[in-house]
Amino acid sequence: MPTNVHAYAAPASGQPLAPTTIERRDVGARDVLIDIEYAGICHSDIHTVNGDWGPQPFPVVPGHEIVGTVAEVGADVTRHRVGDRVGVGCMVGSCGECVNCANGDEQYCVEGMVPTYAGTDRDGTTTQGGYSTHVVVDADYVLSVPAALDPAAAAPLLCAGITTYAPLRKWQAGPGKKVAVVGLGGLGHMAVQIAHAMGAEVTVLSQSLKKQEDGLRLGADDYFATSDPDTFDHLAGRFDLIVNTVSASIDLDAYLGLLGVDGTLVNVGAPSEPLGVNVFSLLSNRRSFAGSMIGGIALTQEMLDFCAEHGIGAEVEVIAADQVNEAYERVLASDVRYRFVIDTATLG
Amino acid sequence: MPTNVHAYAAPASGQPLAPTTIERRDVGARDVLIDIEYAGICHSDIHTVNGDWGPQPFPVVPGHEIVGTVAEVGADVTRHRVGDRVGVGCMVGSCGECVNCANGDEQYCVEGMVPTYAGTDRDGTTTQGGYSTHVVVDADYVLSVPAALDPAAAAPLLCAGITTYAPLRKWQAGPGKKVAVVGLGGLGHMAVQIAHAMGAEVTVLSQSLKKQEDGLRLGADDYFATSDPDTFDHLAGRFDLIVNTVSASIDLDAYLGLLGVDGTLVNVGAPSEPLGVNVFSLLSNRRSFAGSMIGGIALTQEMLDFCAEHGIGAEVEVIAADQVNEAYERVLASDVRYRFVIDTATLG
Repeated sequence: MPTNVHAYAAPASGQPLAPTTIERRDVGARDVLIDIEYAGICHSDIHTVNGDWGPQPFPVVPGHEIVGTVAEVGADVTRHRVGDRVGVGCMVGSCGECVNCANGDEQYCVEGMVPTYAGTDRDGTTTQGGYSTHVVVDADYVLSVPAALDPAAAAPLLCAGITTYAPLRKWQAGPGKKVAVVGLGGLGHMAVQIAHAMGAEVTVLSQSLKKQEDGLRLGADDYFATSDPDTFDHLAGRFDLIVNTVSASIDLDAYLGLLGVDGTLVNVGAPSEPLGVNVFSLLSNRRSFAGSMIGGIALTQEMLDFCAEHGIGAEVEVIAADQVNEAYERVLASDVRYRFVIDTATLG
Repeated sequence: MPTNVHAYAAPASGQPLAPTTIERRDVGARDVLIDIEYAGICHSDIHTVNGDWGPQPFPVVPGHEIVGTVAEVGADVTRHRVGDRVGVGCMVGSCGECVNCANGDEQYCVEGMVPTYAGTDRDGTTTQGGYSTHVVVDADYVLSVPAALDPAAAAPLLCAGITTYAPLRKWQAGPGKKVAVVGLGGLGHMAVQIAHAMGAEVTVLSQSLKKQEDGLRLGADDYFATSDPDTFDHLAGRFDLIVNTVSASIDLDAYLGLLGVDGTLVNVGAPSEPLGVNVFSLLSNRRSFAGSMIGGIALTQEMLDFCAEHGIGAEVEVIAADQVNEAYERVLASDVRYRFVIDTATLG
């Protein structure tokens, strides 16, 4: 078994990623060794290696949208077998005992979940992510990837998929519900597909009409440009749920005005600056402004099964590992439709 | 029948209220003439007559916490009879046909509800409120006040009661739920009683411990001072629901930090300035920040019946009409436990 494996790492804050080798732990009784096939590139990876979210334990191997096959399992693992296609998302551990873990909300573990990279694992070591040929993960945090899913298109489901699926489920997107998705990027293009498959009427609210054709093809019923002020008059009070996938600051009161009675605007990204909200916007129509962060393990499995059943995957551009720095530039320029995925065979 | 009735009105913005007479319309086929017994003083009355909420159609007779007896009914009225004890809250009309009216949320009527005073009635006249001996109201907006309720203590239920009952019902205060009430004033002292009667575990969060004894007597299980920073550490992640009855600006992120997974902070008052919210406070624990404004007619009736069943009323200081300006000063100084109610017999 390899203990030293190929990977791509950021050696220091703001530095380009470069090939390296890292050590993976021996496969413990509850562990699964995964032979990684694909790793998606999430905007969070870029924030982390650029130090936007504070100091990090460099070198950092990013990647929390992982798909691969099981190469080895520990003695106590019953949930996965050698050869299974599996996935790993944003977390690889949690206490398993607190009220939130017990409720299937491991991402809100009161002890703190263990992030897939740049986190401290329960054995004290630093976690390293999916831009790598192999990873060893506690079997409880390893998802089954249904055979119906293309493995490259499935990788982004592990973060972008669950991040949008979770609020759509919690706020009950479905038949008779009018859902708006703000932003058609990596997250937004998943939200549109999922909300449509759930049976909701889906509207994309994007800065311009540039991606309108894509939005409609992905399942949107309507598509409006937010740069047009008429949009906010025309759609006033219309939606039951707005999923805001844009991390930049928005005019919250304008978007809240689009919600009907008991409507919710849920943010899945976090702008770096606080947002201002006029409370009258919430008193009117008894509206809510909410946040949602990825989703628990059971819900992530449900999402993968849902996507398999409905033929949903990310639209991806598969790249070789040595294209990762260029891909980061293009993500920052919003020049990707809609997710880069690294073919980890190019790491060896 | 009186068409000119005694009232207390603010003649112009910021002017003291003074005795006057106003005209009430003839009793139409769908109307009820109410002989007013008590009218509560709500902070909104003061905001309105002081012009805090923009220009008003002076003279303004405030008062939207009205209890009295039916003196006459129109030909088509079946819901109320002469002699019945009835109440009127914050609205006296709505279109009755839009989706929100159809759903029992008349306060969110898409045509706009008709406020009980300083509003434009459906016949084009300006509405005048409860600081008056009589009022004529469309029977559909007249509530039945159960015999078990003391009429003076029932008057504030028509605004303070429903304003707090509605969010407690919507966000399911009840057994097993931990509810915090921010502020122990006119609204807060209702929220504590109602949440307790619903079976929730109730905590008061007040600036100081000055009213702790009252809070516990009204049904709170715990009482904490928000001026003590330890409060926010000690109670982190504890509540399912926080009802914020304070209209002053608060440190929203600090209060959101007190919510567990899927917890909601709901404002029932609106600070005049926008509030800043760090979206990370919402992403953590999938929290919501919401608003709620009074409640529909059917829910208001439910609230009155609930209060009668559980022996709940406002704690009131009954005053004569000529004390109203002094009472306004004392409301602004938070010097009332917990609601002034005008005995309208003193108006004649």
